[in-house]
Amino acid sequence: MADTEQTRALAGRYFATMAARDWDAFAALVAEDVVYELPQTSERITGRDDYVRFNREYPGDWRLEVTRLLVDGDTAAASMNFTVGAEQLVGLVFLEVGDGLVRRVTDFWPEPYEPPTGREHLVERLPGTTDRFGAS
Amino acid sequence: MADTEQTRALAGRYFATMAARDWDAFAALVAEDVVYELPQTSERITGRDDYVRFNREYPGDWRLEVTRLLVDGDTAAASMNFTVGAEQLVGLVFLEVGDGLVRRVTDFWPEPYEPPTGREHLVERLPGTTDRFGAS
Repeated sequence: MADTEQTRALAGRYFATMAARDWDAFAALVAEDVVYELPQTSERITGRDDYVRFNREYPGDWRLEVTRLLVDGDTAAASMNFTVGAEQLVGLVFLEVGDGLVRRVTDFWPEPYEPPTGREHLVERLPGTTDRFGAS
Repeated sequence: MADTEQTRALAGRYFATMAARDWDAFAALVAEDVVYELPQTSERITGRDDYVRFNREYPGDWRLEVTRLLVDGDTAAASMNFTVGAEQLVGLVFLEVGDGLVRRVTDFWPEPYEPPTGREHLVERLPGTTDRFGAS
């Protein structure tokens, strides 16, 4: 199992190079056979070249801010506020690392929805302070 | 900061008692002023009594299986496959603990969606092995 603090440094560099669009530095952190999965769309990208290209080609003037980063051995979990133009999204990411590289990435993109009825007696409606959805 | 292994034991009991619908044992793990947030709906529940009631009253014959659990100091991140009748959902949860109790819970419920066009040259479409969406 990877050391938690090594994983923390790697995960920090992963998000920092992505946020900076420093794709050469980003590519150097990723295993040649990296697997990227989006379970909500059943999409999978395999291999460093295609994964870096996917990120490089991602459309729009996006910016990301990491809002949580938890590291546990050779795994990490993060959340981020992701802004594309006037739209604000939240991304949730799990990383698996090994041999000093990111080996697997799983991304989730939850979306706002209207709550079901029947629990109004228990809830308040307040915008979250950490996770930002919606038009900016 | 809480000890990571104490947090791991608490998080494990939290999900185990929830899965078992053992609400008395579950309530004993939760702070009296616990805050539960659903950022996608901007819903917030405050306090142990209402939070336990929310879980106890949650409709349907649901079952949960924890698929990832990462622990880092006084925080934990988990994913679960959540089945309600024939429907399969994925839940993503962040826990914050203190003084041996769960103090804050943030839940996300991402949903399946159709992928945007323009990246077909990079992706395969395959069902995920860890995260299960859809009708069972």
